[in-house]
Amino acid sequence: MEDHVDPSLVIEDRVDPSSVIEDRVDPSSVIGDRVDPSSVIEDRVDPSSVIEDRVDPSSVVEPPRYFDNQPREHSGTGVPLKNSAQGFVLVHAGAGFHSESKAKEYKTACRKACIKAVAELREGVCALSAVTTALVELENSPITNAGTGSNLNIEGETECDASVMDGKTLNFAAVGALQGIKNPILVARKILLESEKGKLPAGRIPPCFLVGDGAYKWAMAQGMASSTAAALTTRQSMASFKKNKRKLELADQLQNPQKRRSSNLTSDIYQPAMDTVGAVILDSCGQVAAAVSSGGLAMKYPGRIGQAAVYGCGCWAERANGTNAFSSASSTSGCGEQLVRTMLARECTCAMQKEDAHQALLETMQDKFIYSPFLTAEDSVLGGVIVLRCQESSENCEVGSGSRAFMVEFLWAHTTDSMCVGYMSTQDGKPQTSISRLPPEVSTGRSVAIEGGVCRLYNQST
Amino acid sequence: MEDHVDPSLVIEDRVDPSSVIEDRVDPSSVIGDRVDPSSVIEDRVDPSSVIEDRVDPSSVVEPPRYFDNQPREHSGTGVPLKNSAQGFVLVHAGAGFHSESKAKEYKTACRKACIKAVAELREGVCALSAVTTALVELENSPITNAGTGSNLNIEGETECDASVMDGKTLNFAAVGALQGIKNPILVARKILLESEKGKLPAGRIPPCFLVGDGAYKWAMAQGMASSTAAALTTRQSMASFKKNKRKLELADQLQNPQKRRSSNLTSDIYQPAMDTVGAVILDSCGQVAAAVSSGGLAMKYPGRIGQAAVYGCGCWAERANGTNAFSSASSTSGCGEQLVRTMLARECTCAMQKEDAHQALLETMQDKFIYSPFLTAEDSVLGGVIVLRCQESSENCEVGSGSRAFMVEFLWAHTTDSMCVGYMSTQDGKPQTSISRLPPEVSTGRSVAIEGGVCRLYNQST
Repeated sequence: MEDHVDPSLVIEDRVDPSSVIEDRVDPSSVIGDRVDPSSVIEDRVDPSSVIEDRVDPSSVVEPPRYFDNQPREHSGTGVPLKNSAQGFVLVHAGAGFHSESKAKEYKTACRKACIKAVAELREGVCALSAVTTALVELENSPITNAGTGSNLNIEGETECDASVMDGKTLNFAAVGALQGIKNPILVARKILLESEKGKLPAGRIPPCFLVGDGAYKWAMAQGMASSTAAALTTRQSMASFKKNKRKLELADQLQNPQKRRSSNLTSDIYQPAMDTVGAVILDSCGQVAAAVSSGGLAMKYPGRIGQAAVYGCGCWAERANGTNAFSSASSTSGCGEQLVRTMLARECTCAMQKEDAHQALLETMQDKFIYSPFLTAEDSVLGGVIVLRCQESSENCEVGSGSRAFMVEFLWAHTTDSMCVGYMSTQDGKPQTSISRLPPEVSTGRSVAIEGGVCRLYNQST
Repeated sequence: MEDHVDPSLVIEDRVDPSSVIEDRVDPSSVIGDRVDPSSVIEDRVDPSSVIEDRVDPSSVVEPPRYFDNQPREHSGTGVPLKNSAQGFVLVHAGAGFHSESKAKEYKTACRKACIKAVAELREGVCALSAVTTALVELENSPITNAGTGSNLNIEGETECDASVMDGKTLNFAAVGALQGIKNPILVARKILLESEKGKLPAGRIPPCFLVGDGAYKWAMAQGMASSTAAALTTRQSMASFKKNKRKLELADQLQNPQKRRSSNLTSDIYQPAMDTVGAVILDSCGQVAAAVSSGGLAMKYPGRIGQAAVYGCGCWAERANGTNAFSSASSTSGCGEQLVRTMLARECTCAMQKEDAHQALLETMQDKFIYSPFLTAEDSVLGGVIVLRCQESSENCEVGSGSRAFMVEFLWAHTTDSMCVGYMSTQDGKPQTSISRLPPEVSTGRSVAIEGGVCRLYNQST
């Protein structure tokens, strides 16, 4: 561990959530006169005053030297020397509503995922492997709405969506409406790895997205383990299902179709924690990956696919290249249909190429999500996202010549009541976790909370 | 019919395909020195010299008056007076390989789809309805790889993907891996219409994407008709399946995994016509819609989802608004996995906001598809797209005061051997059809053929 930089060198720029959230002016009263975003976050701490040794992007005139401008071979990852491997993980356990009573359990799930991922990153594994490891841990937690303990559909079944994207190869794979598998993310990852082997026998093109029974049978043919419905169902997921089933029966008894569809019914479906877990990773090679996994909405129709299985919507990861100065990755959570229509993961990742990551994410959440032209019919826009971006720093760093420094900026933003996140770098002794909450006085689905931090990673190249 | 403009006034700008295609310089020999696209299409006819009374976009200083800057109510479409309703349809019957011997059948399918859609447009139906009508006709043709006669999967089953997007509401719906339904597009459209009614009983969010058994059961619950597997299977689709099954068995007998995956095997799977049918529509209100439907790749795994079910990849439609001068729509066909990774439908539609539609589509097919960073591992990039864009003309038109003129530009482009298209305006007596072909001397999957036309529609507002 002697090569590790003192964790106290990791700079954290956690902004007090109460200072960054402002209830947006009622849009109906503001026509053609949108509030200037820069005036909304007036209480925000000036980043330049806090992140003291943050590199001024404008001073980095050279193009990033480390990242691939040309695609490399898909197989194999350059693994640095042991003890020098660095990396960063940011995870989420859903954007929705996290009760205070269960806050500790959510945080524990995030903490475990961070620790497992960081242990792998220290061993020099690639971002794709580490992000899968983080997701498996989150899926295995019975408290999260993914894998074991997922929300049940209207037939009382566990049906999961998951996807993964490798920023290095830009490859993506997904599973949807998958039953009988403990870790859907492992099937998604297997699809991705198989597709990188080239064409199937007789020149067939390998799939990137498998659903339902077909996805299950494919996983079985690959020798993956199956799981019983009972093993995936927890006491809590079954209790929520029974409660919701009664609410639905009551609602169905109402004669007036208008009333039946009302979202103001006291018998509205209880969404234990709205949606989805996910992670974004930076590995020691400066590559990023992103993944997402979800049990979907409670009482959904069988076969319903949410953003966690849809390209561009659940996760996104893209390496730096000739046009992108930053490697960036994101993973979303919330109302799947709204996250699909707005392609939020891709939008947030692309926004990370702007100079000010915090401002870019805030504007994206406002313009491309809350006020998206694709969601004008929605009275409430519910979602959250975790994002990271990374750039190699061109300045000399303190550890010694021959070493490299990566500047990592990480953020989370949500329009839901709360979002649970955790993060950790390989230089940290333990993960940080947080349940970010909108203040009670603002409108859920119309306001954004945004937080984040910055850290620098030193990687010895010899 | 007396309000109809003489069909001879419709201006067509069909460019000779042999003049617009150039085999691109071998990318491996050109590193960092891309050929200037403007130099590649040097043989292209100068559009300004052919489209004689095309409105100079720079002279249209007023914003489009007809298109919605603000979203309207989702229910109901402004239906103009009978006999004055105008519109335009462009359909495709797949980008892939269309044999000369079956050219007539493909063209007939496109012709029928155009005639049905135009008949509805003349009655004043909205773009969403007309695009569904066109798709039903294409799905019902046994020659196309959609609905009846679809490619069979490796289990010998028909499994279909379809999706539809309404440019007016920006709403989207899809079905994937759907069995037992004659017209998958009708299920997609039903999902879209149901979602516009607001929340489901007990405040549940309506789905936008259903797959597999769940999608089938949902359709049954909506009272839609089911179909037997036998009714969806044609003599030809079964013959192709049996032939492919034998090829696959031969390939599986090869011991060397490398050889088994080779795409140069003489026993490669026969893809009857690679993929997908689709349509784009402009209605008399100036609104656009797009749809796509596919049986997927021959011998695919059950549960495999292609671009026809994925948001942004199979079809896209967007009305003009404050930032978009044109309403535009597109529908794709080809290798589903490649069309997913490049989000080709959305990319092509967004490119339509540039001044020169032809040039914008050519550049998109080159930069965002053939040379996409998301497809660097592919030796051949196979796809096609149909696109239309529309803008209200501000000039006085000849029919009389009070009438409106729409300028419609429509294009198709493909990297596959061939693409079959048809198009018709409400002012035309009959549809035009064409099988566009890459010249034999250029490389399939590395060259683009691009064609299209322009027409003007006059709509009487009184």
